[in-house]
Amino acid sequence: MSTTNEQFLDDFRAMSTFGATAGGGVDRQAGTAADHETRQWFGEWLARHGFDEKVDQAGNQFGTVELVAGAPYVLVGSHLDSQPLAGRYDGAYGVLAAAHAAARVAAEAAAGKVQPRYNLAVVNWFNEEGSRFAPSMMGSSVFTGKLALEAALATTDVAGETVASALKSGHLRPAQDAPDLTNVANYAEIHIEQGRILQEQDVQIGIVDRTWAASKFRVTVNGAQSHTGATRMEDRQDALYGAALIIAAARDLTAEFEPGMLHTSVSEMQVLPNSPVTIARQVLMNLDLRSPDEDVLARARDILAKWIGDAQDRSRTEIRLDLTHQWGLVAYQPEGVALGTASARHLGFSHMDLMTVAGHDSTNMKDAVPTVMLFVPSEEGISHNEAEFTRDEDAVRGTELMTEVVRRLVRGELAPTGKSNA
Amino acid sequence: MSTTNEQFLDDFRAMSTFGATAGGGVDRQAGTAADHETRQWFGEWLARHGFDEKVDQAGNQFGTVELVAGAPYVLVGSHLDSQPLAGRYDGAYGVLAAAHAAARVAAEAAAGKVQPRYNLAVVNWFNEEGSRFAPSMMGSSVFTGKLALEAALATTDVAGETVASALKSGHLRPAQDAPDLTNVANYAEIHIEQGRILQEQDVQIGIVDRTWAASKFRVTVNGAQSHTGATRMEDRQDALYGAALIIAAARDLTAEFEPGMLHTSVSEMQVLPNSPVTIARQVLMNLDLRSPDEDVLARARDILAKWIGDAQDRSRTEIRLDLTHQWGLVAYQPEGVALGTASARHLGFSHMDLMTVAGHDSTNMKDAVPTVMLFVPSEEGISHNEAEFTRDEDAVRGTELMTEVVRRLVRGELAPTGKSNA
Repeated sequence: MSTTNEQFLDDFRAMSTFGATAGGGVDRQAGTAADHETRQWFGEWLARHGFDEKVDQAGNQFGTVELVAGAPYVLVGSHLDSQPLAGRYDGAYGVLAAAHAAARVAAEAAAGKVQPRYNLAVVNWFNEEGSRFAPSMMGSSVFTGKLALEAALATTDVAGETVASALKSGHLRPAQDAPDLTNVANYAEIHIEQGRILQEQDVQIGIVDRTWAASKFRVTVNGAQSHTGATRMEDRQDALYGAALIIAAARDLTAEFEPGMLHTSVSEMQVLPNSPVTIARQVLMNLDLRSPDEDVLARARDILAKWIGDAQDRSRTEIRLDLTHQWGLVAYQPEGVALGTASARHLGFSHMDLMTVAGHDSTNMKDAVPTVMLFVPSEEGISHNEAEFTRDEDAVRGTELMTEVVRRLVRGELAPTGKSNA
Repeated sequence: MSTTNEQFLDDFRAMSTFGATAGGGVDRQAGTAADHETRQWFGEWLARHGFDEKVDQAGNQFGTVELVAGAPYVLVGSHLDSQPLAGRYDGAYGVLAAAHAAARVAAEAAAGKVQPRYNLAVVNWFNEEGSRFAPSMMGSSVFTGKLALEAALATTDVAGETVASALKSGHLRPAQDAPDLTNVANYAEIHIEQGRILQEQDVQIGIVDRTWAASKFRVTVNGAQSHTGATRMEDRQDALYGAALIIAAARDLTAEFEPGMLHTSVSEMQVLPNSPVTIARQVLMNLDLRSPDEDVLARARDILAKWIGDAQDRSRTEIRLDLTHQWGLVAYQPEGVALGTASARHLGFSHMDLMTVAGHDSTNMKDAVPTVMLFVPSEEGISHNEAEFTRDEDAVRGTELMTEVVRRLVRGELAPTGKSNA
C-alpha cells in the first residue's frame, strides 16, 4: 500500500505519543513499556501496509514483503528505542521513513512500475542506544555476528533485569523465518544529522561517506577512603578529585587542536562509596575521544597520557585508562555513496558528503553488506535532548530520497559484491 | 560487674567481628543486618553486666543501671554503626569504652566506693554516620529534639526502605521507659581523634573544647542533554564538566589559606542521565567547607562565589549552591572541658585541648546538657577507612580516663546548670 507525505507526517505524530515527555521529547529506553508500546504500534502499521512482521531472537523487529520468491532482501530501517529524555527523531524518524519508502516501492512493484530483483524488509533494530543495556547497537551487532546472541540476552540493566526478560515482556515471540545476514543484499538507513553542518551550509541532504575515528576508554581512579572533614588536605587521596581533573583535562585537550578536530566527553560516572562524609575511594567513568583525523586522535592520546600523570600527582590517586573500543576513519562503500548521491541528484535535492561522528546501526551493517547512509538536517544540531527537531519539509524530503534509494536498491543497482569496506 | 582492661580488649575484638571486611575494617551501615548483629551482641553484653537494655522509638539503644532511685542519668556512649568499608574504632570504640567505664563505676557504687548522685546509662546512638539514611547523627538529633521522630522514621535509603522498616528488622521493640532528654543530667563521649595532632605532638589525650566552623552546601549544576560525539564542543552545556570545575575549585580554594585553615570536600554525586552517549543535563553533589577560623570560612565562601561564576561561563551551565547546614566555632561547656582535664591530670595522662573537625553525637548533646568530649590518638589520622587504627594502650588509657570522668559525673561534679553553650 503506497503512502503520501501527509500520511507520513501523521504517522510520525502518532508514533511520537509513545513515551512522550512533558518537554516535547520521548523516553523509551530499550525493552521498557514505552519501547514495547512503540513496537506494538509499529507492528500494527506494518500489518496494515502489507508487511509480515517477524521478530528475531535479539529482538530486532522486521517487516518483510515478498516481491521475488526466494530472493535476498534489501533491508532498510533504524531504531525506535531512545535515550532517557530524548528527542522524537533520533532513530524513530529513520524507521518510519524506511517503512514508508518500502511501502511505496512495494506498491510500485505490485503495479509493475518497478522491476524488482530483491525482496524488501524494514527493520527496527533493538537497543541501538545502549543507555539501559550496554553496549549500544546491540541488535545490529548480534545480526552482523559482532556480538554473541547469548551475551546480548544475558546483559543486565542497573536493576538486574536481563535483555531476555525485557524482551519477553513485549508483544511478539521470535519467528523462525526472520531475515538473517545470509539473505540480506544491501542496507540503507536515514537519520537526522545530530550536527549543524547541513543547516549552516543550507544543504538539504548529507550522504555519509565515513565515520570519525574514536577511542573509548574506561577510566578507573583509585584513591583511599577518609573522613571528609578531619583528614588534612595534604593527606587526602580523593578519587573524585582525581576524576574531576581528568574531566577538565579532557575538555582542555580539545583546545590543543583546531576547532572541530577533537571531540571529548565524560558522561557516565560511578562514585564509591558516594557518602556525604567519606572521601571517594574509587571513581569509574567513561572517556571518549573522537576526531575526523586519526593523527589528531593519536596526538590527543599522547597529550592526555602526560596530563593524567599530572592529575595523579595532584590528587595522590592512581588513574588507569583501559581502551574498551576504538576505530579509525571507517569508510562507507563508495558505490553506496554514489547511489545515494545519484538519488539526491535525480530528485533535485542539494547534497554534500558528510562524516558521521555518532555511531549508527549502519556502522555495523556496512561491514557486512553494501550500505547507503543518509542524513537530513537537525535544527541547531540538538540531539539526545527533548528539543531535538527536524522540520517537516526536511523529514518529507528525506522520505522521498529514501524511496528513490530503495527503488534503486530493489532493482539491483548496488550489487552485493563485498563484505569489506572499500 | 566491674571489668578489666584485658576484658575490654577481648570485647573489642569480639565486637569487631560483626560486619568485618576482608581489609580489616567493618561495614555496618545503620539498620543493616551487620548493624543489628552488633546491637544484638551489645544488648547481650549489657545484660551480662547488670544493665537493663531499653531501645527508644528512634532506635537509640540504652543500657541503664539504677544507683539512686528516681535520679536523672549520667549518659555515656557513642555509635556502633559505620560508614561503608570503614574502620573498627569510629564510634564503636566509644560505645564500648563508655560501657566498661559505666560497669566499673556501677560496681564501685555497689561496693560503696563511690557515692552516686545520679543513675547511669550507656547509649549506642542510632545512625550517627548518615551514609545510608541522611542526615547523620540521626538518633541523637531526635533525642535532643532537633529532628522530628516522624521525619527520621520516614527517611528512605536509595533502595526506598525507610528507617522505620530497617529498625523493625532488628531484635528489640521500643521500651516506654527508655531515657529521654528530661532525665539526663550530663553526657560524656570518647572517640578516636580522626586526625594526627595527638600522635604528632606525642600527647595521650585530647579534651575537645570546640568544633570547627562549617558551611555545607547542596550543589546543582544544570546543563543540557546532547550527543557526546556529535555535539560541537562550543555548543555543549555539560553539567558534569561544570561539576568537575567546582570540585577542582573547592580544592584550589584550600591553597588560598594557610595549611590546615580550610578543609573542603565533595564526596557524593548524582549524574543525570548518566549515559555513555548523552552529555549530563544535571549533576547534584554535596560541598563542605570547614575551618577553625570563621573569618577564613567567610573569605573562602566569597572567593568560591567568584570562581563559580567562572565555572558557569566555562561550562555554559547554571550552578546553584544551596546552604543546607552551617555552624560557627561552637564551644563545649568550659566546665566539661575542666572536668575532662582534671580527670586526665588525676590519672597522670598527658593531654591537650583540641577542636573537633568531625561532628559527633556529643555535638548534639552539648547543646542540651553539660558534656565532656574526649579523644584518643588515631594512627596517622586515618579514618572512614578499613586501615583506621588506635593502639591497644591508647584504647585502654581512654577507657580508664572515661571511667574517671564517669566517676566524677555520677558524683555530681558537673552540675546540670544550663542548656546552652558557655
